[in-house]
Amino acid sequence: MSEETGFESGAKRLVELWGEIADLEATIQVLSWDQETYMPAAGQAARGSALGTLAGLRHAKLSQTELGDALAAAEACAESGTPTAALARSARRVVDKTRRIPADLARELARAQSRGHAAWRSAHAEANFALFAPDLENLVRLSRLEAQALADGTPAGDGGEAYDALLDKYEPGAKAAELEPLFRSLLAELTPLLQAVRATGTEIDESPLQGACPRDAQLAFGTRVAKAFGFDFDAGRIDRAPHPFCTSFGTGDVRITWRWNDTDFRPGFFGILHETGHALYEQGLPARWGRTPLGKPVSLGVHESQSRLWENLVGRSRSFWEWALPELHAHFPALSGVTLEQLWPALHTVKPSLIRVEADQGTYDLHVAVRFELERRLIAGDLAVSDLPGAWDEAYERTLGLSPAGPANGVLQDIHWSMAAFGYFPTYTLGNLMMAQLFEAARAELGDLDAAFARGEFAPLLDWLRRNVHGHGHRFRADELMRRATGQPLGAEAFLAQRKALTAEVYGVRV
Amino acid sequence: MSEETGFESGAKRLVELWGEIADLEATIQVLSWDQETYMPAAGQAARGSALGTLAGLRHAKLSQTELGDALAAAEACAESGTPTAALARSARRVVDKTRRIPADLARELARAQSRGHAAWRSAHAEANFALFAPDLENLVRLSRLEAQALADGTPAGDGGEAYDALLDKYEPGAKAAELEPLFRSLLAELTPLLQAVRATGTEIDESPLQGACPRDAQLAFGTRVAKAFGFDFDAGRIDRAPHPFCTSFGTGDVRITWRWNDTDFRPGFFGILHETGHALYEQGLPARWGRTPLGKPVSLGVHESQSRLWENLVGRSRSFWEWALPELHAHFPALSGVTLEQLWPALHTVKPSLIRVEADQGTYDLHVAVRFELERRLIAGDLAVSDLPGAWDEAYERTLGLSPAGPANGVLQDIHWSMAAFGYFPTYTLGNLMMAQLFEAARAELGDLDAAFARGEFAPLLDWLRRNVHGHGHRFRADELMRRATGQPLGAEAFLAQRKALTAEVYGVRV
Repeated sequence: MSEETGFESGAKRLVELWGEIADLEATIQVLSWDQETYMPAAGQAARGSALGTLAGLRHAKLSQTELGDALAAAEACAESGTPTAALARSARRVVDKTRRIPADLARELARAQSRGHAAWRSAHAEANFALFAPDLENLVRLSRLEAQALADGTPAGDGGEAYDALLDKYEPGAKAAELEPLFRSLLAELTPLLQAVRATGTEIDESPLQGACPRDAQLAFGTRVAKAFGFDFDAGRIDRAPHPFCTSFGTGDVRITWRWNDTDFRPGFFGILHETGHALYEQGLPARWGRTPLGKPVSLGVHESQSRLWENLVGRSRSFWEWALPELHAHFPALSGVTLEQLWPALHTVKPSLIRVEADQGTYDLHVAVRFELERRLIAGDLAVSDLPGAWDEAYERTLGLSPAGPANGVLQDIHWSMAAFGYFPTYTLGNLMMAQLFEAARAELGDLDAAFARGEFAPLLDWLRRNVHGHGHRFRADELMRRATGQPLGAEAFLAQRKALTAEVYGVRV
Repeated sequence: MSEETGFESGAKRLVELWGEIADLEATIQVLSWDQETYMPAAGQAARGSALGTLAGLRHAKLSQTELGDALAAAEACAESGTPTAALARSARRVVDKTRRIPADLARELARAQSRGHAAWRSAHAEANFALFAPDLENLVRLSRLEAQALADGTPAGDGGEAYDALLDKYEPGAKAAELEPLFRSLLAELTPLLQAVRATGTEIDESPLQGACPRDAQLAFGTRVAKAFGFDFDAGRIDRAPHPFCTSFGTGDVRITWRWNDTDFRPGFFGILHETGHALYEQGLPARWGRTPLGKPVSLGVHESQSRLWENLVGRSRSFWEWALPELHAHFPALSGVTLEQLWPALHTVKPSLIRVEADQGTYDLHVAVRFELERRLIAGDLAVSDLPGAWDEAYERTLGLSPAGPANGVLQDIHWSMAAFGYFPTYTLGNLMMAQLFEAARAELGDLDAAFARGEFAPLLDWLRRNVHGHGHRFRADELMRRATGQPLGAEAFLAQRKALTAEVYGVRV
């Protein structure tokens, strides 16, 4: 057994071979990061070609007979419950996913995604669903074939559905049938909560928060807080990009991006806190397993739980702002008159809206619920693409009480389906539920976190997350991780309790 | 034959396979660029591992039987003098160089370079040659083995020496015996010129050029001039790095770096002009051959000719400054009183110095001559590493009339030998000679370039270089390229004539 990694010696060859795959994956991330941050426009053709070559090399390495043999050897020597067993299981998952997709289907999917993305852009720009419909039909058809191929060889009769194989790409082990009751609880409680808020007629005045926020001051403020949260800038950085994201080339090199609004510090600031949450997870993964699949994040849901926890439960808390408000004043003279009583409620507005990415914390999951319902029906073959716009509008009316003014603000608003990313949306809501449940468990163990936040101390919380989430890498699946960290299976209770408490405090309503 | 590339169809498979090699090479360049510009310190381990994996993959691709067969097929169908023949020749060169180095030797060399570099750093910091000597001995020994391996299979009895095989890595086709008379001419004429300058006792006053130069203003001024020279910023960029360099990921993505001095604009500015010269070459290479060895630069000497031409013959010319001086004034209020009569001579100071990288244009090649002489003797076995410090000091005394105060300013000043880069130094001087001869030919064809420079017009010169140098890619070797562009083989005459004219004008001396 290796002292350093805890792996049996029978896994040695697997670890060696996987190191090259991990290097290729990190390289692809570097090229993609550069493409989004610094690459000049004319570099696109060469970059596309390089990325294609690297993806091909990764695929070839994953398909090698030698890797299969090394994996079988690791499986043979792995005792249940050991790191070696977890390594073999997570490696098996990646290898099988790669091998089950026939080369023709992979090529067809890549082509369909590329075309679908272009068609979606035009359709979105012209607010014309018909321009996207044929591509979407093709993407649904191919995704069903992909789901079939991925499910091939999995135990029969497990009550799953085709959609599960797609969901599993983003949230290993998740099943639609298990998500359904979670979404049902959310709809059952968030919808009346939203109605109660609307019934109060309260409009929170956000105008005190508007004011000139020079770019450099915004970056300095965001960096100050990211550092206070624990982002290690010797092992990471922040750069400008058209869309905020986090990417990792290893635990020693984790990068986030941001964009900003010149007259409102909030989009830039909370964007940085969100990506910092992702970055803290990546920086906290076990470096000793870094070049194996065990050194990777568990799932998109777990990842999102970390970004949302730091953005929303820390960064929007009253206690955090007790510490941060003087910093805000110091960084932005235009906001030097803002009080906690003006600021804090404006960070917790609840209002139904049409656009998911602009939705507040009280309505976000309703947007996700619509997408989960519709994409599941599309993949099951219960909903035709031609019926999708009508089904979308009906679902928004039913769920948020709003009628989209047209497809650009409705069925065409998201990029995901144009890239065949069916099964991705639910991970946003899983992230919210995990966030709330993890935070509750941390508070139960650590006591009064608010007092620490008000002093600008975030290390106790980060340490708890390192011990209970980050440090395990991909050793446990999300369900087991949640059980270990919180003592319970994942549920919606903690999240709903937090939403209710906030709504009561901000709007004075109880349901 | 392909319409686009001009290659015979028999070369098709070679071009396809080479595309992946070119993609890997571009990827290595992206990772290296990021390492020098933005990578956080803790990213080093993962980056080293990724670069090692990519180098291994490139090596494996170059060693593939399929590539060898495709190359043989291209050679079989290539008619002499066609692009296909040039493609096959340049591909053959790379493939043979790769295959001739046994894997053990390649590994030993890589290890020796890594250790040698570390030993050199300590030795340089402590000014103690003994700390580097054992590693340097090993590097010389391995480089001689490398030269033997590389020469294996080349025509016997061509009068070459072991050193030629190393030189050829950087300057394809160059021979030490042909460089020797060039260096002899330079020494014979530059040394008396230097003595004559010293005899005048003239000291040029550089103090008017000192003054506060804020970083952003320096970058703006450098960018302004780089654009005027023709640097396409839609296909390139400038970033900060500890050392200035130029790198290319394809003709559409060429990047340079810079550093600056807060009280003297010259190091930063001429650094940008130098790297812009490199970048103009890379941006002007034939894009249709971009993913083949034919789309690459001819040699380091030709590359250096381009950087030096733009930096020294354009950027230090009086006519250029007639246009640029108002720009200088506008960018740097602290320098608003500087006149052309103060500025121009200070750009042409000639003074013997100990450090090559700080040497002026009148003495630079004397530094190179010392290194050429000594490294050639090391590789030939005529000079022992233990005798190198003494030989170095003797050569500096003889050539520049100076005695190094110690090894840090003497034999330990350069990084090159610690990386086994024997044969690299002469390309700096080849660059100077090519620069002068190309510029003379351009002037003979285009007429009064000075009038254009004084109006800020550089396109006629760039166009000439595109037609005569950049646009050919690697189709011709340096000697043929020079003959085609200038009508003559490479000589020292043009360079010496320019040096003499400048020295006469600045110092009033003639020899």
